[in-house]
Amino acid sequence: MPALAITLLGAGTIGVSWAALFLSKGADVTVFDPHETALVVAKEQVTSAWRDLLILNPMIAELPWDRLHLTTDMRKACDKPDWVQENAPDRLGLKQDLLAQAETYLPIDTPIASSTTALLATDIQNGMQHPERFLVGHPFNPPHLIPLVEIVCGDKTDVALRDRAKAFYESYDKEVIIAKREVVGHIANRLNAALYREVVHMVQSGIATVEDIDRAMKHGPGLRWAFLGPNMVYHLGGGDGGYSQYLEHLGPSQEARWQDLGTASLDKETKAKLVSQFEKSLTSATISDLRKHRDNALIGLLKLKKQLSKDHT
Amino acid sequence: MPALAITLLGAGTIGVSWAALFLSKGADVTVFDPHETALVVAKEQVTSAWRDLLILNPMIAELPWDRLHLTTDMRKACDKPDWVQENAPDRLGLKQDLLAQAETYLPIDTPIASSTTALLATDIQNGMQHPERFLVGHPFNPPHLIPLVEIVCGDKTDVALRDRAKAFYESYDKEVIIAKREVVGHIANRLNAALYREVVHMVQSGIATVEDIDRAMKHGPGLRWAFLGPNMVYHLGGGDGGYSQYLEHLGPSQEARWQDLGTASLDKETKAKLVSQFEKSLTSATISDLRKHRDNALIGLLKLKKQLSKDHT
Repeated sequence: MPALAITLLGAGTIGVSWAALFLSKGADVTVFDPHETALVVAKEQVTSAWRDLLILNPMIAELPWDRLHLTTDMRKACDKPDWVQENAPDRLGLKQDLLAQAETYLPIDTPIASSTTALLATDIQNGMQHPERFLVGHPFNPPHLIPLVEIVCGDKTDVALRDRAKAFYESYDKEVIIAKREVVGHIANRLNAALYREVVHMVQSGIATVEDIDRAMKHGPGLRWAFLGPNMVYHLGGGDGGYSQYLEHLGPSQEARWQDLGTASLDKETKAKLVSQFEKSLTSATISDLRKHRDNALIGLLKLKKQLSKDHT
Repeated sequence: MPALAITLLGAGTIGVSWAALFLSKGADVTVFDPHETALVVAKEQVTSAWRDLLILNPMIAELPWDRLHLTTDMRKACDKPDWVQENAPDRLGLKQDLLAQAETYLPIDTPIASSTTALLATDIQNGMQHPERFLVGHPFNPPHLIPLVEIVCGDKTDVALRDRAKAFYESYDKEVIIAKREVVGHIANRLNAALYREVVHMVQSGIATVEDIDRAMKHGPGLRWAFLGPNMVYHLGGGDGGYSQYLEHLGPSQEARWQDLGTASLDKETKAKLVSQFEKSLTSATISDLRKHRDNALIGLLKLKKQLSKDHT
């Protein structure tokens, strides 16, 4: 694939992380943000993400500042990019306004993908002049490290764009999945949400503390999920008959657990309980230290997975 | 802690994996199973688990066969162990019968822990002569690699035993959490179940395929959960205000997802759909190859986590 010109709308955490990733694969990257100060911070953050990418791939060498353009001028940002990735805060009106501005300057067939977590493609594209060029391309935080991208089309998305988007993200080494239909939370965040609801339920009803739940995850199921999806976990946990044996023998106990799971709400009292238990479990590390630690861990894990897949083939 | 004598009741996957772990830390291990053939297979499986442990800790050297005793004779198995860990199939009557046999021979104060996943401590201990010596010590598969152990007391469990069990498992380098009260699925498997229910719902309702869901997990959320529990993930995803900012700003979209999550059932048609989609995603690898691959991945991850925690302190 030839080197592309990519425009990122929004210089927050997600936009900046995308910028570093695209730069590392040879793209020419323009970052638009209405706030000059955001662009100043963006420079530091791209530099930091670049350090991560350099550990994963020493071949990328120095950060190519000549291919990174930061601007508060939407007209400049929309000067013939091959791809636009929108990363504004997750509010419908705000995103619609931003895209309306961008459409003023963009050629009518330039694809626009949104990194939205919480909104639906159909709702966002509803206000657009050329909604067929729009879809959701949802990354995971931080996008320069986590491979997953979920593609979701809205009602008015050109079907051909879906495959083009898949090829686009795959050319940047992303692992792409396509939602069969549009639902709240796309796919992976529905899994997150289902699990988190039970976390909150257990804390609310005094079954376990925030700290114990976090420890359970990272010393238990989380270890397997770094390598195996939930279906594969059960395939390997079901005796020599695999998944089908698992479902026959252990399906009933799975259903019994489903019956017993709780509901939850994030009312004021519950939020206070979650935060207070969480804070008790914290060491003195700052959020920024913890993020660095998370990213170092992810880098180590990605290197490990690469090595294992070499050994496996 | 002095080297202990540990008796394992049941020589299935879990019992054998426990055996290798306990042996590697110097314990004298007796494995009871009513079936001679199970004990023959157990020898091979202990050997295989030992190879894993040797990679994690080359200091353990040769498998100490002189400290491993395999027997179909319950009287011999109960000759003064310091700890009994029961790992029979997860059926109440079967476990109760087994424990009744063991109690015939054991001193009245020998602790007995059950590895049960699906049963409640209170139900199991109900048939016991000395129920106060019993609790659940639930490991994750495979126990010689996954650190988590969940302790759950039944109504009749001696409270002092809870702390003794914690010290016992921790002396074998396990990460122990104690359930505040007894519920179906203990703690971690409720998280598993909540997530898996949404997996099945998405497959049932055609939102995503089994293959895409497994890919989403291992290239997305699963990577973070290997190092961070769900609460910590949101602490780091909520801007510089941390968890409390996350809950304020993104709590409502979390609740919107909860509203949209589905229910599921494992009826015949659904099970067939899960298995058929799963089988389509399988390469030619056998279950045994895939387990080996899983265990190699876990070993690599455990080594990585050890290294990171050294770097972090």
